[in-house]
Amino acid sequence: MKTEEMLGSHPRESSVGLEVVAPCVEACLECAVICTSCADACLGEESVQGLTKCIRVDLDCADICQTTARILVRQTETDQQILRSQLQACVVACRVCAQECEKHGEMHKHCRLCMSACRNCERICQELISRLPS
Amino acid sequence: MKTEEMLGSHPRESSVGLEVVAPCVEACLECAVICTSCADACLGEESVQGLTKCIRVDLDCADICQTTARILVRQTETDQQILRSQLQACVVACRVCAQECEKHGEMHKHCRLCMSACRNCERICQELISRLPS
Amino acid sequence: MKTEEMLGSHPRESSVGLEVVAPCVEACLECAVICTSCADACLGEESVQGLTKCIRVDLDCADICQTTARILVRQTETDQQILRSQLQACVVACRVCAQECEKHGEMHKHCRLCMSACRNCERICQELISRLPS
Amino acid sequence: MKTEEMLGSHPRESSVGLEVVAPCVEACLECAVICTSCADACLGEESVQGLTKCIRVDLDCADICQTTARILVRQTETDQQILRSQLQACVVACRVCAQECEKHGEMHKHCRLCMSACRNCERICQELISRLPS
Repeated sequence: MKTEEMLGSHPRESSVGLEVVAPCVEACLECAVICTSCADACLGEESVQGLTKCIRVDLDCADICQTTARILVRQTETDQQILRSQLQACVVACRVCAQECEKHGEMHKHCRLCMSACRNCERICQELISRLPS
Repeated sequence: MKTEEMLGSHPRESSVGLEVVAPCVEACLECAVICTSCADACLGEESVQGLTKCIRVDLDCADICQTTARILVRQTETDQQILRSQLQACVVACRVCAQECEKHGEMHKHCRLCMSACRNCERICQELISRLPS
Repeated sequence: MKTEEMLGSHPRESSVGLEVVAPCVEACLECAVICTSCADACLGEESVQGLTKCIRVDLDCADICQTTARILVRQTETDQQILRSQLQACVVACRVCAQECEKHGEMHKHCRLCMSACRNCERICQELISRLPS
Repeated sequence: MKTEEMLGSHPRESSVGLEVVAPCVEACLECAVICTSCADACLGEESVQGLTKCIRVDLDCADICQTTARILVRQTETDQQILRSQLQACVVACRVCAQECEKHGEMHKHCRLCMSACRNCERICQELISRLPS
């Protein structure tokens, strides 16, 4: 992805450094697509009945990560309170989704990959929150 | 909208009462569409240069309200932590967006309508948060 | 919903009349929320195994209707080709989703309500396409 | 991105080969994020007044690419008609957006990068359409 090059072509400077924003955008996007895929893979399993909680949380996490990515990408007139609270919601969603996927990780590779994308996204969002101007 | 009838046809009971969830879904949806429209109306104004902050915040608020509505609509295996933190992000976005739109409310009716949709959504989300099982 | 009042506060005129655009926005939004709810209600049914196709199509239809609504709401510098092709995708998704929900309509009220929201949305989008400047 | 590995962990086979689906998902996601960024970068330019059409089309294209990516990612019970018509809408949006961005490409690097992401996405979606079972 050319995220950092793209963000670097913006006329205004990012309120936080691009070297932390760009990886966070990418982690959110990757997590959104992997959660969408995990929900769908769970739906395709014969054991779907035992995976309903996983599907539910995947769908929530996908929506939240996608929205967080969009807000992170925007650099014009960023409101720090909005950015912070959406990042916090993203951290919570990723943490809960990783915990749920962990339960099915031994059985399903898609849950394993999803757990790892969620943990990565949680960590990077957490890190970005700690860098935000307070 | 048939939101309450639809949510009432769900096989599982809502963790909070439908009489509070349904209006919250509708407030989020209305706020999302009105913020999308306000961003676009600002973009169509001759004075767009002075409305860039308003457009930016409208876009963020639209994305956040839309995601919040989706999470609220889902009743299967709801995770209360995800719901709560996304509602909190929604409250923040609506508050900031209402403040921004208020600045342009005398000039632009779309900002006035958007301010009022945001305030309504903020209030109803706030109320729902206070009803969540702690 | 205050859709028509909001769209009427826009500085530029709609390329098609607001009296057809506003109901189409609302039909798309209603269909999006009802498909999201139907997918989740199906997921909560004991018979989820027999509803996987319905869930899948509901999720697609929700995403497509939501995107179509956003594009319809925007009136600044509308591109007719984009609008037309997205409306066509919406018509297809609603038709397929209504057909799928019809199969489960006797068993599940949420599928019945979803079928009817999809048919309504298909019809209104179809009508709007026929009014677009060719 | 681990798109191909993730899609490969799905219990059901893709109706088209993963070696064509995975790059198409990634092209749509990249285009969505770059269009979101281009809209925001245009909004941050002093010359925003001359970029309103570009912002508008960027926003439409971002929404359409994002929805297309989600539908592509899902492999359970894919409906070929929905997939095809959404891909066609995506091709149209990318073509129009590339044409618009080309007009500002000499002045703005973000428009240049966006034009190239749109052309890439258009080409890959086109290719995938030609591979769909008819």
